Amino acid sequence: MLKFDYSIPTKIHFGKGRIQILARTIKQYGSRVLLTYGGGSIKKNGVYDKIVEILNNNDIPFFELGGIDPNPRLSSVKDGIKICKENNIDFVLAIGGGSVIDCSKIIAAGCYYENDPWDFFTGKARIKEALPIGTILTLAATGSEMNGNAVISNLETEEKLPTAGEVLKPKFSILDPSYTATVPVKQTAAGTVDIMSHAFEQYFSPTEGAFLQDRLAEAVIKTCIKYGPIAINNPEDYEARANLMWASSIALNGLLTYGKFTDWATHGIEHELSAIYDITHGIGLAILTPRWMEYVLDESTVDKFVEYGVNVWGIPMEENKFNTAKKAIEKTKEFFIQLGIPMTLQEVGINEERLEEMAEKATKFRPLGSFKRLKKDDVLQIFKASLK
Amino acid sequence: MLKFDYSIPTKIHFGKGRIQILARTIKQYGSRVLLTYGGGSIKKNGVYDKIVEILNNNDIPFFELGGIDPNPRLSSVKDGIKICKENNIDFVLAIGGGSVIDCSKIIAAGCYYENDPWDFFTGKARIKEALPIGTILTLAATGSEMNGNAVISNLETEEKLPTAGEVLKPKFSILDPSYTATVPVKQTAAGTVDIMSHAFEQYFSPTEGAFLQDRLAEAVIKTCIKYGPIAINNPEDYEARANLMWASSIALNGLLTYGKFTDWATHGIEHELSAIYDITHGIGLAILTPRWMEYVLDESTVDKFVEYGVNVWGIPMEENKFNTAKKAIEKTKEFFIQLGIPMTLQEVGINEERLEEMAEKATKFRPLGSFKRLKKDDVLQIFKASLK
Repeated sequence: MLKFDYSIPTKIHFGKGRIQILARTIKQYGSRVLLTYGGGSIKKNGVYDKIVEILNNNDIPFFELGGIDPNPRLSSVKDGIKICKENNIDFVLAIGGGSVIDCSKIIAAGCYYENDPWDFFTGKARIKEALPIGTILTLAATGSEMNGNAVISNLETEEKLPTAGEVLKPKFSILDPSYTATVPVKQTAAGTVDIMSHAFEQYFSPTEGAFLQDRLAEAVIKTCIKYGPIAINNPEDYEARANLMWASSIALNGLLTYGKFTDWATHGIEHELSAIYDITHGIGLAILTPRWMEYVLDESTVDKFVEYGVNVWGIPMEENKFNTAKKAIEKTKEFFIQLGIPMTLQEVGINEERLEEMAEKATKFRPLGSFKRLKKDDVLQIFKASLK
Repeated sequence: MLKFDYSIPTKIHFGKGRIQILARTIKQYGSRVLLTYGGGSIKKNGVYDKIVEILNNNDIPFFELGGIDPNPRLSSVKDGIKICKENNIDFVLAIGGGSVIDCSKIIAAGCYYENDPWDFFTGKARIKEALPIGTILTLAATGSEMNGNAVISNLETEEKLPTAGEVLKPKFSILDPSYTATVPVKQTAAGTVDIMSHAFEQYFSPTEGAFLQDRLAEAVIKTCIKYGPIAINNPEDYEARANLMWASSIALNGLLTYGKFTDWATHGIEHELSAIYDITHGIGLAILTPRWMEYVLDESTVDKFVEYGVNVWGIPMEENKFNTAKKAIEKTKEFFIQLGIPMTLQEVGINEERLEEMAEKATKFRPLGSFKRLKKDDVLQIFKASLK
């Protein structure tokens, strides 16, 4: 187990009806609010109206930035910063999933930075200060509600890049599973894959002896396997929505990472797809994950896949451990198919044309991954295996 | 899954050599330190000298309260409060295991309370304010390094009672697994049982559908089963010490409790033993736990024991589920025996004499437990089954 520093200061208010604590909790941190949200689903399901009512009843002035896209744009970040600066905003309240929350984090940080906020992503600037942020989660997927990470897409440069900062960790997040009951099947499936992929990226690690962390990761993966299909078949199943929602936060709040090297190659590869083709992140991850697993499976990695197969899928250990490993990978693929996800790049409209360019960009700064290091040609092979 | 509020603000600095961050971390919170510790093992293994050197080199004035006992006494709490008040202490640094940390927490709270700090335990007063606390952990067991709980023994009243407060959560804890390499076999075994027992108290719950939390609890239990024996056979095994140490914190920082009713009957019963006979808490838990399991096993609880047996011990599911459940309990008992723990009350010097009195006291305020509610006679039966 490696050295680590644990810091998860975000307070979580979990359960049906927890929105009641909103006004008094905001008042601990700010007085003038920027309300951020996405494409309008919160206006259909009543969440928006409820929040506006609470803010009005408690005399909390607020301004709005709606229409934040999945794969949130740098342009939305800039719009938000402008609103904040013009209106002396001192608190950002994000209502949505990871895209809205990520965008809100960079707005919060951008208020303390005079230049282009894209600098936070290219390494030109570091995030040291940010407005306090609160979130009201409406999609179980990215874990952004409980960490300091953000991923933003720059349409001009066709890049989708991550950044992080301790000050970006939300002060509080309200997790009401009933708010996710109206999430469509496709997004529920993609969110489930996203949670699982976060666990995979930390589970498949070259660090040995972080036993507890590996068992915690398996807990998250098993939760997705149990409740993903239930939430898809019965969207209003509270127990399923609650377990998926809490799993999304646990999967990426640091708990599975502490003490380990982590991989993140699959995410790095997927971000290229989302940056250019604007596909749903979780769908891209589902297509790539089994191909990544098949590609990195070798003598040095097989034991971890066996551990995964035995502990997560209950596959009996075979004499030839590669057989056990391959069955675990096959199970993973079958599960994604069961969730109804298109499992080839062709099905989501991506052909061979720009694969080489994306492989090049994915490995521009350094090789990807730590479980197995991937260079440009490795990434290209994984893309090609994912085509059909 | 029930509603919950998650708040784990303690920062953890984990790994070999992390003591390096001590001085600058203390300075974030205070300037005059009360150093608390136990029976002197830290003076033998060099930890004390190292800390004193760091404080001196960084011009941090400190005062000392040593000799804090296992099952820490109210009298030590009062001694500590006196030192703090006389010397304008503004930070408490606990070096030790749960006893030292628990004692330090009540010292920290007592500095803001004019009356008898025992009031915090009888319900006469609530803890609202406390000096900031930091801990340097030297025993993996209670989880006190990452929560707001404290248990204190009052020799005058022969009571051992718990209290808790958000302000008691340490600001930081330094977890260096190498500091536990010199923990004797008996304490290593008792600590391992204590961690497992904390997981059991939260796992065996009447709440259904907290699936993720149950898998997280299993992760902790499996970690103890794997590494307890390794740490006993090879005390300097860093991987074993690291996994046990982190498991101790995870087991009782709230993570396994959020969203569930929890039981805590076994702890309630054990505290009576420790209060009167001053036995090691983890030894008492080991003796009581299998007897508690056998006593509460019935038609309403059997499924949970089956889940435990299958998921934790890999016991095959039998047609008669009580057989599977009983095997799981037997496995638990065998494991404690493997750790070298005396498994009867007689062996630790406790006879029938005061069992009834202890059963009476354990249930004085209310029945114990939520998985199965226990009244005085139930507790007496468990005591009797534990005698030999």
